[in-house]
Amino acid sequence: MSKPVALAVFAHPDDAELACFGTFAALRARGYALSVLSLTDGANSDVEQSYLRPKEARLAAAVLGAELVVEDFEDGSLTAGRVVFDRIEQHIRRVRPSVVLTHYPGPREHQDHQVVGTVATTVAHRAAHVGLVLQGEPPGQADSFTPQLFTDITAHIDLKLKALACYKSEADKGFMHRETVLDRARWWARQAGAVENGVPRYYEAFVVSKALLPVLGV
Amino acid sequence: MSKPVALAVFAHPDDAELACFGTFAALRARGYALSVLSLTDGANSDVEQSYLRPKEARLAAAVLGAELVVEDFEDGSLTAGRVVFDRIEQHIRRVRPSVVLTHYPGPREHQDHQVVGTVATTVAHRAAHVGLVLQGEPPGQADSFTPQLFTDITAHIDLKLKALACYKSEADKGFMHRETVLDRARWWARQAGAVENGVPRYYEAFVVSKALLPVLGV
Amino acid sequence: MSKPVALAVFAHPDDAELACFGTFAALRARGYALSVLSLTDGANSDVEQSYLRPKEARLAAAVLGAELVVEDFEDGSLTAGRVVFDRIEQHIRRVRPSVVLTHYPGPREHQDHQVVGTVATTVAHRAAHVGLVLQGEPPGQADSFTPQLFTDITAHIDLKLKALACYKSEADKGFMHRETVLDRARWWARQAGAVENGVPRYYEAFVVSKALLPVLGV
Amino acid sequence: MSKPVALAVFAHPDDAELACFGTFAALRARGYALSVLSLTDGANSDVEQSYLRPKEARLAAAVLGAELVVEDFEDGSLTAGRVVFDRIEQHIRRVRPSVVLTHYPGPREHQDHQVVGTVATTVAHRAAHVGLVLQGEPPGQADSFTPQLFTDITAHIDLKLKALACYKSEADKGFMHRETVLDRARWWARQAGAVENGVPRYYEAFVVSKALLPVLGV
Amino acid sequence: MSKPVALAVFAHPDDAELACFGTFAALRARGYALSVLSLTDGANSDVEQSYLRPKEARLAAAVLGAELVVEDFEDGSLTAGRVVFDRIEQHIRRVRPSVVLTHYPGPREHQDHQVVGTVATTVAHRAAHVGLVLQGEPPGQADSFTPQLFTDITAHIDLKLKALACYKSEADKGFMHRETVLDRARWWARQAGAVENGVPRYYEAFVVSKALLPVLGV
Amino acid sequence: MSKPVALAVFAHPDDAELACFGTFAALRARGYALSVLSLTDGANSDVEQSYLRPKEARLAAAVLGAELVVEDFEDGSLTAGRVVFDRIEQHIRRVRPSVVLTHYPGPREHQDHQVVGTVATTVAHRAAHVGLVLQGEPPGQADSFTPQLFTDITAHIDLKLKALACYKSEADKGFMHRETVLDRARWWARQAGAVENGVPRYYEAFVVSKALLPVLGV
Repeated sequence: MSKPVALAVFAHPDDAELACFGTFAALRARGYALSVLSLTDGANSDVEQSYLRPKEARLAAAVLGAELVVEDFEDGSLTAGRVVFDRIEQHIRRVRPSVVLTHYPGPREHQDHQVVGTVATTVAHRAAHVGLVLQGEPPGQADSFTPQLFTDITAHIDLKLKALACYKSEADKGFMHRETVLDRARWWARQAGAVENGVPRYYEAFVVSKALLPVLGV
Repeated sequence: MSKPVALAVFAHPDDAELACFGTFAALRARGYALSVLSLTDGANSDVEQSYLRPKEARLAAAVLGAELVVEDFEDGSLTAGRVVFDRIEQHIRRVRPSVVLTHYPGPREHQDHQVVGTVATTVAHRAAHVGLVLQGEPPGQADSFTPQLFTDITAHIDLKLKALACYKSEADKGFMHRETVLDRARWWARQAGAVENGVPRYYEAFVVSKALLPVLGV
Repeated sequence: MSKPVALAVFAHPDDAELACFGTFAALRARGYALSVLSLTDGANSDVEQSYLRPKEARLAAAVLGAELVVEDFEDGSLTAGRVVFDRIEQHIRRVRPSVVLTHYPGPREHQDHQVVGTVATTVAHRAAHVGLVLQGEPPGQADSFTPQLFTDITAHIDLKLKALACYKSEADKGFMHRETVLDRARWWARQAGAVENGVPRYYEAFVVSKALLPVLGV
Repeated sequence: MSKPVALAVFAHPDDAELACFGTFAALRARGYALSVLSLTDGANSDVEQSYLRPKEARLAAAVLGAELVVEDFEDGSLTAGRVVFDRIEQHIRRVRPSVVLTHYPGPREHQDHQVVGTVATTVAHRAAHVGLVLQGEPPGQADSFTPQLFTDITAHIDLKLKALACYKSEADKGFMHRETVLDRARWWARQAGAVENGVPRYYEAFVVSKALLPVLGV
Repeated sequence: MSKPVALAVFAHPDDAELACFGTFAALRARGYALSVLSLTDGANSDVEQSYLRPKEARLAAAVLGAELVVEDFEDGSLTAGRVVFDRIEQHIRRVRPSVVLTHYPGPREHQDHQVVGTVATTVAHRAAHVGLVLQGEPPGQADSFTPQLFTDITAHIDLKLKALACYKSEADKGFMHRETVLDRARWWARQAGAVENGVPRYYEAFVVSKALLPVLGV
Repeated sequence: MSKPVALAVFAHPDDAELACFGTFAALRARGYALSVLSLTDGANSDVEQSYLRPKEARLAAAVLGAELVVEDFEDGSLTAGRVVFDRIEQHIRRVRPSVVLTHYPGPREHQDHQVVGTVATTVAHRAAHVGLVLQGEPPGQADSFTPQLFTDITAHIDLKLKALACYKSEADKGFMHRETVLDRARWWARQAGAVENGVPRYYEAFVVSKALLPVLGV
């Protein structure tokens, strides 16, 4: 019998790692196969060696044993038209995920994040086999992001940090720093109401767009 | 080892049955113990024999083997003050649920539904052991209700109908009619994207207020 | 004296029929002339004979004696830029409608529906002669659609079904099925508070974007 | 054959006059009988002779030949409980309106306005004979008020001013001044897109909470 | 010439300290006189020595040299009626603040926080001399709180911690812990886009309800 | 020491003048240097001599001694992609504003206004030196625009009118009329709670997207 699949659909290499690699690790531990779809190669980043990002993404995916597909849309210029819809739909048909994770398409997010978050959410809603559609924390500022679902990633935080550390070309970006990542994860632990008792806990946070109870397995 | 518990907190007898008894049955099938808290006895209903409702509620709870507690707040005059908070908190402390279901407190709902839905949601958020807080479909008109979580209750629809049929004193109310209940459940099946292929399917729908992933058991 | 005009502005052939042909029939019965504008020919549908849709649209429009214009924008790739604005504006100038019906541009709708709904609404607001701007029910899932205006189409449901039946190329799509259409119309009847008394009633539902009271004729 | 009825449900004497007396006059001109329900007598106003307000309300109602009922709830302390619900419901049963006008219950409104607007809207939605439920402009600051429906009251502005002038005890309040009332009415004319051509036009503005198309008479 | 005044209106002793004492210290440094109004004495807290809170509040206010008034409404049972409105209005008339800080009245907040935040905001909006109305961070979970205004309190964080340390009776509550307070202040620094460069920065966050530019002094 | 800078980022010549030239004048009076960025030349306006608009913009900017840059994007066809982001970012890097003013990107605004308002807001949020990001009143209809910040421009209204009068090619547009501009400014004065006492006051209104307290200078 084949494994259930979790699919992360994001705009650039590093987006999935920041938003959901802790949850991804937790899903793998529960028997899920993992797949990451990046719509662009992230080449238009501000950093000098941005051409390295697809390669770094491959290293990061390997940390969790996840499949990685990097599409060739132009970084920074995605539009919510038929071509992007079709491409995302093809992947969803191919891997038949039961869980889809994507961007929270808030009004102040990066233009590509808005496009990918909106399209991936719409497409995933239409697929009857997708039982859970989650939108992850924005990498910069949280703005209107008001999550309902929280994942305890305390047991997986090291893997998340290891995956992020693969992005050497982005080492100078504030949101990639180890301390920033840990601070955020502690904030969401607190928002989730996780009791600390001295030992810090780490969480990821998501807006729930669609959930089917039997898939969730309550 | 003790069973996990699902707790339904609603304003009047019949509210829980309408909003979540299909999901309750599904939870029981997965090993949950069930508890229903009704804040009032429903005595101020428009129907002649409204005094029968607590007794009818007992019959309905028995259909699913659920515990039932009917509090003595006055039907129609609940306020979101300390007394109601404390009472709901006591029940949550007593039964220690991992799942809490309550009213969707929309702006056009019955005044008691707004109070109970708001207070139960707030209290359940604060309890670290509650992993899932859901707000159910309004019994009258859906208004701004925009659910994210859908439960397949096809296998349990008969139990839900049986429980509702216990409310003989309310048999003339439109939203208690068998056909109304089935129509609604089919509508949510369609909204959930459930494929029909000729065989009708039945769903319940909920707004997700809080979800902790390990409790959901993905 | 010329008739008042109702104009439906939608993205693809079949959109207008699904969202508002019952209301359209009701308007015709009250003396309105009807006009349908479809921005694309629907050629990129998933069905085999999608090239037939403009022809089918013509048959459907004929059921109500409505004028039909099918523009040649590419199905699936509409953008909210000057060209689409100008084209919709031209039609509004030409037919001078007092009622405009269009898509509800919700965040999870088909990309073309979002574009057409947004642009048609904006343009119609600016025209002083348009007294009513309505956004109709999404064909797939209702999501955040929260209608305020409900039309009783019980007397016109057969015409709506007849128009939809013209789309033979789409006969396999779930939302085109006779039973789906009737279920939806019954749901909105219930949301509108229509009393049944045994006889089923059928309604269409709309978000009100603009209404001028004298035009509404209260 | 009896006339259709329009009912205004507001918290204090002067609220209905400010929010909807132009529209009320327009409805009378179209054959409606008018009824005003004020839940309190406005006795806790800041002005010296606030005890005069019920009497002034009677004079104002007489300007339009409207029925007036002043209930005896305490000004400033209304709560959305059973007693207020029942009282409003009684009036709606008694006069059987097809149009109900009430407060916009925005988050920064006077506490009584929030209670009356919420309860009257909820009760009016449940009544199948009510075809139009409108929430009127707040008397102080507009805040989040985003109206969809605009009434041309140019022909009735004098009657509205005459009714407001009956409130001599409130002559010093800024929002009762003739110029303030005209300024507001011109603002809504502009928001409604009314073309001026030199001659000023006057409008009232409403949020549409419920509309049934046959009642609107398109 | 008299000093400008900043007034904090909150429900319980400790609420003002948590939400805005850093900003309060910054305002004092810019020449503001400070006043704190607590509507209740916090006696119904879960802690054993809750009767000590008014005394602790006095010590905390003294840290910033702020005036303190503790009203005698019952903790947990505030209602948005005339009495609470009048009491808050009296204080605003008495101290004539140009800045008012209060609770963010979000839907999942403590019932008293909702009441005080709503009433204080409404009253402060009506006072022409109030140039800035801010709603502070909820003490428990942030929920839908989406602030626009951020204050750099790095230079004042020690005073904030010192004031909170006065509440010995609440020393066991998680949100009163020094580390929790610092974590939150670092989170808001990051949300404000404050550059770190190794040195941690501390911020408080507020929803802006009203701002008059000359008062802000741009 | 160099002056602080206020930057207005809008889509077409005349947009900045309508939305914020009163506030701009107030900022200049407080020592700010002013810069206006117009993304297009406004050539696709409905008026005959629309080619004059960049020249008219230069005259208008001169009224306040503001720098003006007119970019060459095509009027009516802006898209929220990388090119527009980069261009706006370049200007923000070049002039290093502490205040940024732009469009309110409401759902019914001109397509270009939505694009520029969204992109300028996002970019300005990311710049640590920007302490205030404001979105100005739409030129046509206010729709969902719910401002929090109000500027008293009574002392500057003549300069605003003088700048608008430079747009001779648009003299026939209703929203450019002197009386319309004054009416709007009086409306916002009233919404701001400005007391009149016979002398009319004039205000501009803004949604606050970001504010840092030390920059605001309270």
